[in-house]
Amino acid sequence: MKIILAKQAGFCFGVKRATQIAFEAAGKGGKTFTLGPIIHSPQVVQKLEEMGVKALENVAGMDEGTIIIRSHGAASDELEEAVRKQLDILDATCPFVKKAQEHVKNLSNSGYDVVVVGDADHPEVQGIVSYATGKVYVVASGEEAVKLPKMGKIGVVAQTTQSFENLRHVVDACLVKGGEIRVFHTICDATAVRQEEAKKLASQVDCMVVIGGYNSANTKRLAEVSAEIQPRTHHIEMAQQLDPAWFEGVKIVGITAGASTPKWIIDEVLEQIESIAKDKNR
Amino acid sequence: MKIILAKQAGFCFGVKRATQIAFEAAGKGGKTFTLGPIIHSPQVVQKLEEMGVKALENVAGMDEGTIIIRSHGAASDELEEAVRKQLDILDATCPFVKKAQEHVKNLSNSGYDVVVVGDADHPEVQGIVSYATGKVYVVASGEEAVKLPKMGKIGVVAQTTQSFENLRHVVDACLVKGGEIRVFHTICDATAVRQEEAKKLASQVDCMVVIGGYNSANTKRLAEVSAEIQPRTHHIEMAQQLDPAWFEGVKIVGITAGASTPKWIIDEVLEQIESIAKDKNR
Repeated sequence: MKIILAKQAGFCFGVKRATQIAFEAAGKGGKTFTLGPIIHSPQVVQKLEEMGVKALENVAGMDEGTIIIRSHGAASDELEEAVRKQLDILDATCPFVKKAQEHVKNLSNSGYDVVVVGDADHPEVQGIVSYATGKVYVVASGEEAVKLPKMGKIGVVAQTTQSFENLRHVVDACLVKGGEIRVFHTICDATAVRQEEAKKLASQVDCMVVIGGYNSANTKRLAEVSAEIQPRTHHIEMAQQLDPAWFEGVKIVGITAGASTPKWIIDEVLEQIESIAKDKNR
Repeated sequence: MKIILAKQAGFCFGVKRATQIAFEAAGKGGKTFTLGPIIHSPQVVQKLEEMGVKALENVAGMDEGTIIIRSHGAASDELEEAVRKQLDILDATCPFVKKAQEHVKNLSNSGYDVVVVGDADHPEVQGIVSYATGKVYVVASGEEAVKLPKMGKIGVVAQTTQSFENLRHVVDACLVKGGEIRVFHTICDATAVRQEEAKKLASQVDCMVVIGGYNSANTKRLAEVSAEIQPRTHHIEMAQQLDPAWFEGVKIVGITAGASTPKWIIDEVLEQIESIAKDKNR
């Protein structure tokens, strides 16, 4: 059985940066917390916890020490509270997310009603939205954008992991809503590149394994686009979940991983599949 | 034979205003010119000429007197020359066109590359474009916009008589061209409203007569949308062109006119068709 690992599997730039910041801080010791899970990988969060760095729901529970802002960013009022409490702040917000937050702040301050293209329940979107000082709407699709009210000046930004198609449809719907529409292309193409590679790989193999947190939106989407092409697609969080039965009659297996999946987990999965392959050849 | 005249036939707001300014100036006498034809109606231009107000190609030929800026606006360097020559300037630029010119100027000064959706040969577009101080492109369609180079910040405005569909396609194509895209909805809906009414009328009649200058883009388009629904559509400039043969077997005739068609011409056409109808009933 041949195993092909996608080139784009695993940590993106922002996740790599956030994880480095968190582990460095953990190594130094002291009273250190993350504001929410640092990235959407339960295994990384657990490792940090083992090193004494816990994830807090909000700043309310902290009075001293270091607070690490997660890759998805934080709501502006949480950050303000951290500043007020004179906590040491380590900002691990992905620079692309930071840009989206800044655009929303500037648009709001310049009198634009803001439309954020994304998932209203996602922490990144909740953070971005919090920077609006005026009206702000979250829409998940062009169909939702059609229902928006008429506005004067409209500013549009997107959750960094949105599909470009989605942004296009929302912009199209917004064009009839106001006299001016100002769009910032805040989508990070790491997601699109990863998905394109997964699609290509899925078309060349008999079985796909997608590795990443079940709470990771980009990993779930990766598994979806793969399954559309290769129905034998399995989304796992850890090597222990691999089932040898999945590989019956499989000649080539493709592997990819979400942007928040650490290398050590990918390596464990690779080893485990190699061992399953050896058993098959015996 | 029943005759139905479209409610929206004839002068739009900007043309009405420009014509009033020109005839008032003509009434006062003195050395007065228009910079290009005041509106796209050869008959109005001729009337003004009979009153002593000639249309000049450019300011170069003038040293004193009053210059009237046409409804489509003027190129910025022509205006500057008129100021330099201390001519009296009567600005009859349509306020909607003026807005588009101002947006282009501001966008350029703020570092945006500008995309103008429109017909590069039209005097309105040539005027709008002249206000750019940086890079500026004219595209007539989404297909043309696809060929635009990559840019940083992109500003988009439209010729006021463009179709909204066209603006949508260009914006869609521009979204992949830059990190920020700022769109000003400069389309005047008088054109769209007039076209919608013409379509509806064309579906209810046996014959359509569309009145307006052959050099008037909006009249030509009006005749096109009418002909798509009612092939018996005739585009004329004046009542003398009416042919009784057009009305053979016609029970209802619909009439509309472009934004630069004066009321007196519409009235002449109505009278002439009524007289043809009477002859038929004899």
